[in-house]
Amino acid sequence: METEAPTRIMLAVNESSIKGYPHPSISSRTAFEWAVKKIVRSNTSGFVLLFLHVQIPDEDGFDDMDSIYASPDDFKGMKERDKIRGLHLLEYFVHRCDEIGVPCEAWIKKGDPTEVICSEVKRVHPDLLVVGSRGLGPFQRVFVGTVSEFCVKHADCPVVTIRRKAEEAPQDPVDD
Amino acid sequence: METEAPTRIMLAVNESSIKGYPHPSISSRTAFEWAVKKIVRSNTSGFVLLFLHVQIPDEDGFDDMDSIYASPDDFKGMKERDKIRGLHLLEYFVHRCDEIGVPCEAWIKKGDPTEVICSEVKRVHPDLLVVGSRGLGPFQRVFVGTVSEFCVKHADCPVVTIRRKAEEAPQDPVDD
Repeated sequence: METEAPTRIMLAVNESSIKGYPHPSISSRTAFEWAVKKIVRSNTSGFVLLFLHVQIPDEDGFDDMDSIYASPDDFKGMKERDKIRGLHLLEYFVHRCDEIGVPCEAWIKKGDPTEVICSEVKRVHPDLLVVGSRGLGPFQRVFVGTVSEFCVKHADCPVVTIRRKAEEAPQDPVDD
Repeated sequence: METEAPTRIMLAVNESSIKGYPHPSISSRTAFEWAVKKIVRSNTSGFVLLFLHVQIPDEDGFDDMDSIYASPDDFKGMKERDKIRGLHLLEYFVHRCDEIGVPCEAWIKKGDPTEVICSEVKRVHPDLLVVGSRGLGPFQRVFVGTVSEFCVKHADCPVVTIRRKAEEAPQDPVDD
């Protein structure tokens, strides 16, 4: 039976919004660990994990409020750092996959996460898309929107949303 | 790693609405075959499939429009037949699991499918709930409602919706 093509699970992962926190967001890590523990299990040759990280262009430099951008080169440096941070994020997951022994691929795209995730699903045709979620209540959701809800409705493949555990929520639940 | 407790996947299954059709609905079969092919794969000892069939009390006798209910015994016979049909439905899935070699459990509940599925999730704590869907467009959805959408929003565990393949849709897409 395992001669069939492996099951391709796409995971949309993002960085933590918490300063000084290790790179992956809590909900990205929760979604990844769920997929490994509950789906892949010991069957590492039956699955391929596909990590997509979408960088939002508008948030470029958000963490660099203290910096002064006085020349085009300053922006170039910033974008370079952005790219490096994205690579660090993917490195975390690729490294975990290597430890576990499950094959993986990882890539970065720029754009609106909801649109990019759905267009990448159309391009890559995963068997399952796993997205993390902060598990916000309806009141908080109105203000922040949720990528997971959009994907559940619009992605062209089965989607499972993994909610962050309540005990792992940071002080401000909008953080992740 | 496989010494961990098996992953428990709950599948909400229902009967076909098409007369003369074999018992399981097209979308129930599609969801089941997806779970086996894409998630369980060859790792049959790593999973337990939990089949829940919810019978809707209001639809009792819907197929028996030609029958005349003249005494309480007529209704008793009808309910008995309903129970037998539910058992046949579950028998189909239990038999398939036996062929594949994956452990399973199956049970019937009466009530509103959305409420019963969500309360059974609370009681049974599956790791994943798999629900089939007819993949109706927004226009048709307004009239028929969809159990899958409700579960995605309200079930207390990760939920994945498996849409029926377009080529398997019957003449009337509301049928299943």
